[in-house]
Amino acid sequence: MRHLLDTHSLERAAALRILDVAEDMADTQSREIKKLPTLRGKTVVNLFFEDSTRTRISFEAAAKRLSADVINFAAKGSSVSKGESLKDTAQTLQAMGADAVVIRHAASGAPRTLATSGWISAGVVNAGDGTHEHPTQALLDAFTIRKRRYGAASRGRDLAGVRVVIVGDVLHSRVARSNVWLLTTLGADVTLVSPPTLVPQNVSAWPVRVLYSLDEALAEGPDAVMMLRIQLERMNAAYFPSEREYSRTWGLDAVRAAALPGDSIVMHPGPMNRGLEISSEAADSPRSTVLEQVANGVSVRMAVLYLLLAGERDDERGRDL
Amino acid sequence: MRHLLDTHSLERAAALRILDVAEDMADTQSREIKKLPTLRGKTVVNLFFEDSTRTRISFEAAAKRLSADVINFAAKGSSVSKGESLKDTAQTLQAMGADAVVIRHAASGAPRTLATSGWISAGVVNAGDGTHEHPTQALLDAFTIRKRRYGAASRGRDLAGVRVVIVGDVLHSRVARSNVWLLTTLGADVTLVSPPTLVPQNVSAWPVRVLYSLDEALAEGPDAVMMLRIQLERMNAAYFPSEREYSRTWGLDAVRAAALPGDSIVMHPGPMNRGLEISSEAADSPRSTVLEQVANGVSVRMAVLYLLLAGERDDERGRDL
Amino acid sequence: MRHLLDTHSLERAAALRILDVAEDMADTQSREIKKLPTLRGKTVVNLFFEDSTRTRISFEAAAKRLSADVINFAAKGSSVSKGESLKDTAQTLQAMGADAVVIRHAASGAPRTLATSGWISAGVVNAGDGTHEHPTQALLDAFTIRKRRYGAASRGRDLAGVRVVIVGDVLHSRVARSNVWLLTTLGADVTLVSPPTLVPQNVSAWPVRVLYSLDEALAEGPDAVMMLRIQLERMNAAYFPSEREYSRTWGLDAVRAAALPGDSIVMHPGPMNRGLEISSEAADSPRSTVLEQVANGVSVRMAVLYLLLAGERDDERGRDL
Repeated sequence: MRHLLDTHSLERAAALRILDVAEDMADTQSREIKKLPTLRGKTVVNLFFEDSTRTRISFEAAAKRLSADVINFAAKGSSVSKGESLKDTAQTLQAMGADAVVIRHAASGAPRTLATSGWISAGVVNAGDGTHEHPTQALLDAFTIRKRRYGAASRGRDLAGVRVVIVGDVLHSRVARSNVWLLTTLGADVTLVSPPTLVPQNVSAWPVRVLYSLDEALAEGPDAVMMLRIQLERMNAAYFPSEREYSRTWGLDAVRAAALPGDSIVMHPGPMNRGLEISSEAADSPRSTVLEQVANGVSVRMAVLYLLLAGERDDERGRDL
Repeated sequence: MRHLLDTHSLERAAALRILDVAEDMADTQSREIKKLPTLRGKTVVNLFFEDSTRTRISFEAAAKRLSADVINFAAKGSSVSKGESLKDTAQTLQAMGADAVVIRHAASGAPRTLATSGWISAGVVNAGDGTHEHPTQALLDAFTIRKRRYGAASRGRDLAGVRVVIVGDVLHSRVARSNVWLLTTLGADVTLVSPPTLVPQNVSAWPVRVLYSLDEALAEGPDAVMMLRIQLERMNAAYFPSEREYSRTWGLDAVRAAALPGDSIVMHPGPMNRGLEISSEAADSPRSTVLEQVANGVSVRMAVLYLLLAGERDDERGRDL
Repeated sequence: MRHLLDTHSLERAAALRILDVAEDMADTQSREIKKLPTLRGKTVVNLFFEDSTRTRISFEAAAKRLSADVINFAAKGSSVSKGESLKDTAQTLQAMGADAVVIRHAASGAPRTLATSGWISAGVVNAGDGTHEHPTQALLDAFTIRKRRYGAASRGRDLAGVRVVIVGDVLHSRVARSNVWLLTTLGADVTLVSPPTLVPQNVSAWPVRVLYSLDEALAEGPDAVMMLRIQLERMNAAYFPSEREYSRTWGLDAVRAAALPGDSIVMHPGPMNRGLEISSEAADSPRSTVLEQVANGVSVRMAVLYLLLAGERDDERGRDL
């Protein structure tokens, strides 16, 4: 794997490979072998044009456990804010010896530009770009669903027949997009539930079903309900109901969560707005996978960095691990 | 030791244990063995809700010398500022694999909440919470007093009979509180000297004597004089004299410092307001321990992290070191 | 070498020694041995009173490749901004065990004060101070010129007979000053090209020639043309022409670059204002060394840190590398 830019173009075999390597990573973590020498001498740069402490430290933890050196580059206050181009920034990082660049950017497509322009040879990982994609989030979500469903027998399995409901502001959500592509690639049935004003115009071209009633979707007893984070700063916009109405109509409260089948799971990418899109009862219930998602995020990111940076030595992998 | 939340509940034996391990740490440092493999594979998160570069880098240096991985989480600009709860932040860090969380928070009691709520299993170290406590500061102060008094014969000794004067804004000082509890637990006699408006209301319940005249306290020839940092931003408040009057009445100037017995020491937690609570002559005199306190801070924090994270392997300690 | 404060007082032999060690460092990098154990257990503090992401991460990458621990201390928001003196900050870092302090400061002379005041014993590296000097930038520039000229036969050679033109706002440029001293020490002929209002008053005392016409200087076919970065925030000042006029008169556009002799190189310390002092054609042409300068910057900084921190073990150097 050269880069991880999106899940839209990620093929089934490649996705399963990432998930399976992530299983290996999770195994080593649970055996208290926290530090692997695999990426010793490699440099991973976190190039964050938007603040995202959670995602940044998840990648940082993943890289450090593989013994890579990590350099954090927050674009604020840097020469980037003095007008330096993405090209010059990227080439500078490359020239300093970056082996992988993990990029978060407000502009959809910035990671692809970085990876395909010929500017750099380093591996590029998209850590969220505009409203486009957030592929490692989708991979950790898929990993979490598979793990809850198949446990120790997860390796090699896809998500055929798994029914997932994604709820919220789909229009602006890169998490929703990445999940739609990845989950359907892996065979899952995906239903989007959203206020009508927050459904993308071209959704009819997506491999999903759209419902406008959360209760209708939940009545079908889905295997997983994924609540999207509400961006409160958008709440004033015309297409948004009030917080109260949103919560009542589209929030996963205790009653709705309790009505789900026993083995249905409740997912959220975090950070949660408790009491808005999800109630504390739902967030803290045994069916919630919120913290598993965080833990799995490190394993998945370890797998991605490993496949990017040590992938050419695939035959040695067993030994490295 | 599971956590270090305060010195109020820290028992004598536990306190001495920390100080003695800190002696071991200081020894390895002075032998130019700066890097110990003890905490290799452990992750220490610095979770700072308030800026404090000094304390943060002291913990960072301590953790790195024990070969731990360090992740800095400044709450500003993070999802915390978007309204995420302490609980969710903590659980997220735990899920990412944090073995210890070093927390600085504006709210008194936040570290205890973190440690005792059942939210996380990681060890918690209080790096300063509101006006409550700052236990590693008190431990490094006690270490410094003991070291100056007993030198190479410090191990195992307490501070019985040592007379310490703490001077300044006791009302708002977590450093003063942590020192009062720890120093008296170790047998020292503590005298507080403070403007009447800056003495806590319940001070009669503290195991200390209160004086309102610095000159009276110094005339007794104390073994240690600890000057508290004046928070200049509070200087406008009604209970505060002017800077000039404060300095004249409560500051340790050259004349006062020179009148102390030959082996009395002058302490300050830093950063100093030179010319306000302490004069440059006093701060830079041979009796000043300001820089020793900083150096000892790293040793004490190494000891605390060691006891939290490697404490279960107590029998192997000699070998690890 | 105890410190690296400037190139003005750097002797020829010492400069060549740095460049030659940097060659060794570059060699190890290119052999994919990215991580050297040389500075294991040493602590390098990046003490940045001004933002400079590029320079900071270049030093950070250099230190990490030598296995040093790196602590970043951004002065903003720290006790420094609460009025702590440089002296107290420095002594604090020293007491925490800093072996080297890399300092960027707005005040010319701050690094020298730090190094010569007796406050600390740590090695000090000037990473840019006011309009005074930026010695590692000049060293990487000299390294780049030598490497392009002599390739694998660079070791031990100086820059005798090399003709370098430095173009732009010399008055405010620490990069220009450091290059003037270093390049002439190494035997190069240096010509400054600048708007008359941006030439230092005492330039007649410098070992350089001054021209006021870029085209006149380029017509001589120099070996290297070094374009200085325009500080856009100064563009309003009285002594500055408009951006458009600056670009037309003093900018290295495609036509000017194409007219240079075949083996002339075009240099820029970055970040570039493309279209202002340098055109994209010139910046991206094969004669541009912009990215080599960045890569060489890491090698040169490795060499400097190595000579500061492992220099006492000179006889073991071959083995360490």
